[in-house]
Amino acid sequence: MKMILSLLSAAMAVTLALPAQAQFAKPEDAIKYRKNSLFVMQQHWARVGAMATGKIPFDAKQAQDNMEVVSTLAKLPWAAFGEGTDKGDTRAKPEIWKESVKFKEAADKFQIEVAKVNAAAKTGNLDNLKTAFGSAGSSCKACHDSFRKD
Amino acid sequence: MKMILSLLSAAMAVTLALPAQAQFAKPEDAIKYRKNSLFVMQQHWARVGAMATGKIPFDAKQAQDNMEVVSTLAKLPWAAFGEGTDKGDTRAKPEIWKESVKFKEAADKFQIEVAKVNAAAKTGNLDNLKTAFGSAGSSCKACHDSFRKD
Repeated sequence: MKMILSLLSAAMAVTLALPAQAQFAKPEDAIKYRKNSLFVMQQHWARVGAMATGKIPFDAKQAQDNMEVVSTLAKLPWAAFGEGTDKGDTRAKPEIWKESVKFKEAADKFQIEVAKVNAAAKTGNLDNLKTAFGSAGSSCKACHDSFRKD
Repeated sequence: MKMILSLLSAAMAVTLALPAQAQFAKPEDAIKYRKNSLFVMQQHWARVGAMATGKIPFDAKQAQDNMEVVSTLAKLPWAAFGEGTDKGDTRAKPEIWKESVKFKEAADKFQIEVAKVNAAAKTGNLDNLKTAFGSAGSSCKACHDSFRKD
């Protein structure tokens, strides 16, 4: 029950809105911002992944700390895919803007998955972490396949 | 190819097991990580600054949300200034490693200042935010002057 409440609370926190592409002075800033936030997130995600896949020993505190960072960063990139940010130093596919509802759904789904991994990390149980991490990894891949150039 | 990937993955696993600055597979990754996390932090910091300096209207919720992001990101860059990360695509001055105690003190001071701005943002009072922001801004500048090339 505590786990379920924790998951719900995490999912609700995802609705934190950081809106408006107008926050960026130039399209290049938006592109840099989304790439930078995704890179930093990926670095922390990889550390959790190494534990979830048994490549490094499980350290509950490390997993929790890294997932806290991932949770914050997972909210950020999406506001930086505004109109006019499809050209330049980016691997973003045109589908992001052509199928913007589908893209938003994928971004939302990812944040929910991250919230579940974060909740699992908080339990301090490696099996919980493995299960949640696998599911979230599929969400990353699905979005990259649909919306990112190779 | 599969063998190479497997070896790489094993090498990464070893690296990941090491603490702090050794978390990065390559020095370039550490440099990219610290630059990326500083850039994302700066974007959110600038939004709070625009409110603190009256350039945009004060929005208490926006200030709080942005300061939450800044607080998380303010902890990150410092672990990426490890040995061997002084060369490459970086404006880091040699003083970071020559005067590492002073650099650590500056990084710690900055995080304390950020925590104060975060607390001020939570009060929802613009005057509190202005006071805390000004003090933290001096901390940014002092560190850039001492440890970053122009």
